[in-house]
Amino acid sequence: MTPEHLPHADRYRQGLECLQRVDGPQGVAVVQDLAESFPDFARYLVEFPFGDIYARRSLGLREREIATVAALTALGNAAPQLRVHIHAALHVGCSPAQIVETVMQMAVYAGFPAALNGLAVVREVFLAHGIALPLP
Amino acid sequence: MTPEHLPHADRYRQGLECLQRVDGPQGVAVVQDLAESFPDFARYLVEFPFGDIYARRSLGLREREIATVAALTALGNAAPQLRVHIHAALHVGCSPAQIVETVMQMAVYAGFPAALNGLAVVREVFLAHGIALPLP
Amino acid sequence: MTPEHLPHADRYRQGLECLQRVDGPQGVAVVQDLAESFPDFARYLVEFPFGDIYARRSLGLREREIATVAALTALGNAAPQLRVHIHAALHVGCSPAQIVETVMQMAVYAGFPAALNGLAVVREVFLAHGIALPLP
Amino acid sequence: MTPEHLPHADRYRQGLECLQRVDGPQGVAVVQDLAESFPDFARYLVEFPFGDIYARRSLGLREREIATVAALTALGNAAPQLRVHIHAALHVGCSPAQIVETVMQMAVYAGFPAALNGLAVVREVFLAHGIALPLP
Amino acid sequence: MTPEHLPHADRYRQGLECLQRVDGPQGVAVVQDLAESFPDFARYLVEFPFGDIYARRSLGLREREIATVAALTALGNAAPQLRVHIHAALHVGCSPAQIVETVMQMAVYAGFPAALNGLAVVREVFLAHGIALPLP
Amino acid sequence: MTPEHLPHADRYRQGLECLQRVDGPQGVAVVQDLAESFPDFARYLVEFPFGDIYARRSLGLREREIATVAALTALGNAAPQLRVHIHAALHVGCSPAQIVETVMQMAVYAGFPAALNGLAVVREVFLAHGIALPLP
Repeated sequence: MTPEHLPHADRYRQGLECLQRVDGPQGVAVVQDLAESFPDFARYLVEFPFGDIYARRSLGLREREIATVAALTALGNAAPQLRVHIHAALHVGCSPAQIVETVMQMAVYAGFPAALNGLAVVREVFLAHGIALPLP
Repeated sequence: MTPEHLPHADRYRQGLECLQRVDGPQGVAVVQDLAESFPDFARYLVEFPFGDIYARRSLGLREREIATVAALTALGNAAPQLRVHIHAALHVGCSPAQIVETVMQMAVYAGFPAALNGLAVVREVFLAHGIALPLP
Repeated sequence: MTPEHLPHADRYRQGLECLQRVDGPQGVAVVQDLAESFPDFARYLVEFPFGDIYARRSLGLREREIATVAALTALGNAAPQLRVHIHAALHVGCSPAQIVETVMQMAVYAGFPAALNGLAVVREVFLAHGIALPLP
Repeated sequence: MTPEHLPHADRYRQGLECLQRVDGPQGVAVVQDLAESFPDFARYLVEFPFGDIYARRSLGLREREIATVAALTALGNAAPQLRVHIHAALHVGCSPAQIVETVMQMAVYAGFPAALNGLAVVREVFLAHGIALPLP
Repeated sequence: MTPEHLPHADRYRQGLECLQRVDGPQGVAVVQDLAESFPDFARYLVEFPFGDIYARRSLGLREREIATVAALTALGNAAPQLRVHIHAALHVGCSPAQIVETVMQMAVYAGFPAALNGLAVVREVFLAHGIALPLP
Repeated sequence: MTPEHLPHADRYRQGLECLQRVDGPQGVAVVQDLAESFPDFARYLVEFPFGDIYARRSLGLREREIATVAALTALGNAAPQLRVHIHAALHVGCSPAQIVETVMQMAVYAGFPAALNGLAVVREVFLAHGIALPLP
C-alpha cells in the first residue's frame, strides 16, 4: 500500500512522523507553538503539507527541500519559513553547498534582491549550525 | 580548475555548451530567436544563467531543474519559461513523476492556483513528449 | 458535531458536497477534468480547500467568495481561478455589484493593473451569465 | 444623491469621515503621521481609498475589510497594512473568528507561508485587543 | 498655482488632458472602452493616476514612463498595461533604446523570465510602430 | 569601442568602477561584506548587474536608478535593496523630489501598501542624509 492510499485516519499521525523526518524536533516545536493559538490550522499544516505531500514517495526529501528552498527564496516574502526549510534541508542531508547553489540560482529566476535576501537567511542558519562561510 | 575559475573569455562558449546539455537544441533555438531582436540580452542569457550559474558543479542538473520548476511554478507569472524548463527537466533526466511532484508541492508554498496553472503546463509539455497522463 | 470535527474518512465526500454548494456542477466538472490527468491532486483539491476550509462554519460562503475574489485579483497571476470564483460568488448569492466593488477595491491594495485585469474577467463571466454592464 | 456623485470638493472630508468609521482614531493618527513627511500622499490616501472606494455603498464595510485582509495576507509583503486592517476589521464589526477564517483560507490561494505570516499578525493584534487565542 | 493645488472639480478634466499628453488618442480610447462597462472605475482611472499623479510636475513624463515600464516588467502580471505604457513611453519621447534598456535591467531585479516576457511585449509594440529590431 | 564590447576579462574591473559611480564607497562595502560569506556571488553581483547592465550607455544612471527604485518599491519584498538604491539615486544626482515622486507613483501600479512601505524607506534614507521632510 503506497502512502498515497493510506486510510485518511492516519494522515495526522503520518504527517507528524514525516514532519519529524523532515525537520526534527524543531518542526514539531513550530507546530506546537502554532497549535496554542490556532489549533485547527496547526492540524491542517501537519495533515496536508506533511501527511499528504511530503509523505509521497516519488520525490526524495532532499529534492523536496531543494524545491522548497528555491520557491521560498524566489517568492521573497517568507523569511521565517525559509529559515525553517534551510534547517530542514540540512536535516534531510542536503549539503551546505547544495543549499547555497539553490539560493544563488534564484538570482536568475527572481532577481538578485531575492537571492541576496535568501543568502542572508542561509548565513544566519549556517551560523546557528556552526557551518563556516565561505564554504571551502 | 573548477568551472568557477574558467577564464572569463570562455563564459559564452561554456554557457552555450551548458545550455545544450540542459535543454538540447530547443534551448539554442530559443536563444537564436531572441538574438534576432535583442542580441545583447541573448548573450547575457547564455553567459550569466548558463555560463556562470548552471555550469557550477556543486549542484546536479537534475536538482537545478527541480529548483527552477519549483520557482517558476511558485512565481506563477512565467508560463513560457516554465514550459522550457519542464522540457529541460525531462532532458536532464528528471522522471515525469518527479516533475509532477515538484509542481504539486507548490500548492503548499504558493497556493493551489499556482500549482494548478503549473500542472496545466506540465500536461501540455508531457503531451508534446508523448508522456501519458495520469502517470502509472 | 461541527464540520471541524467530522471523521477524516468523510473529508472527500464533504469536500465534494461543499464544492457543489459553492460552484455548482461547473466546479465538479473542473475537478473531473483535472482528475483525468492528475487524480491525486484532484483529490487534494476536493479534500483540503473544500473538505477542510470551505466546510468550516465561522465564515459564510458569500464572505469566503469575496475573500477569494479579492485575493485572486490582487495576486494577478491566476485568471483561470478568478473566472471560476467569480462564477462561484454569483452562485452562492453575492450580487453582481458586490463582486465589482471587491475587484475595484483591489486597485487600492494591488494597483490599477490588477484591478483592470480583474474587471476584464468580471466582464467575461458576467457576459456568460447574461448580466448587463454597466450595472444599474 | 449617492456617495458616488458627491461633489469632488467633499472627497477629502468624506474620506476622513469614512476612515474614522473604518478604523477609528488609529486610522486618523496613521494619516497624520504620514502627513508630517509626505503631505500630498497622505491627502491621496484619504481621498482615493477612503473618499472614493470605501465610501461607496454597494459593499458593506465588513465585507470590504474581509476583502482587504484576504488580499494583504495573500500578497504577503504588507505586514504593517495588514495590522491596520485586522484592527479595522474588528472595528467595523467582523468577529475574531471571521478574521481568523479569512486568513486561514489564504493557505489555499497563496500558500501556507502567507497564511502563517498572516496569523502571526492576527495573534499580535488580538493580543493588543485582549482577544484570547485559541478562539472558543 | 501648482497642479498639486488645482481645485478638485478640475481633476477629471486635468486627468484627461494628462492622459492624452501621456498616451495620445489610444489612452482615451482605452478609458472609453472601460467606461462602457465600468464607468466609475474609468473615472477613477482618469482622476487618480492621471489627474493626481502624472499631473505633478516634479518628475518628467519620460521619467514617469521609465518608472512604469520598469515596475510593470518587474511585477510580470500586467502585460496589457505594459503594452499601453511602452506605447506611452514612445509617445512622450523615450527612445526605443531607453525602453529596451529599462526592460533588460529588470533581469537584475526581477529575474530573466520577467525581462524576457517584457522584451516580448517590447517586440510586439515596436513592430506595430515600425521600429526595427535589433536596434542599431 | 562601446562598453557592450569590452573584453570579458574587464567585466569585474568595469563593474566595480560602475558600482562606485552608482553608489559610492557604500556600494563597495556591501559587496565586500557579501564576499566574506559568498565570494562567488559577490563577484557575479559586480559582473552582471554593474559590469554588464549599468555600464551600458543608452540609458543614463539617473534613469537607471529611477527604474530600480520603481521596481523595488513595486515588488515590495526587497527593503534592504531599496534602501541601497534610494541612496544610489541621490548619489547619481536624482533630486529628493524625483525619488519621492517615483515611489508615490507606485501606488498606481502596485497599490498603496507598496508605496507606503517604499516611503518609509525613503524617510529613513533621507533622515540619514539630512534631507528634511516634507520637501519644500
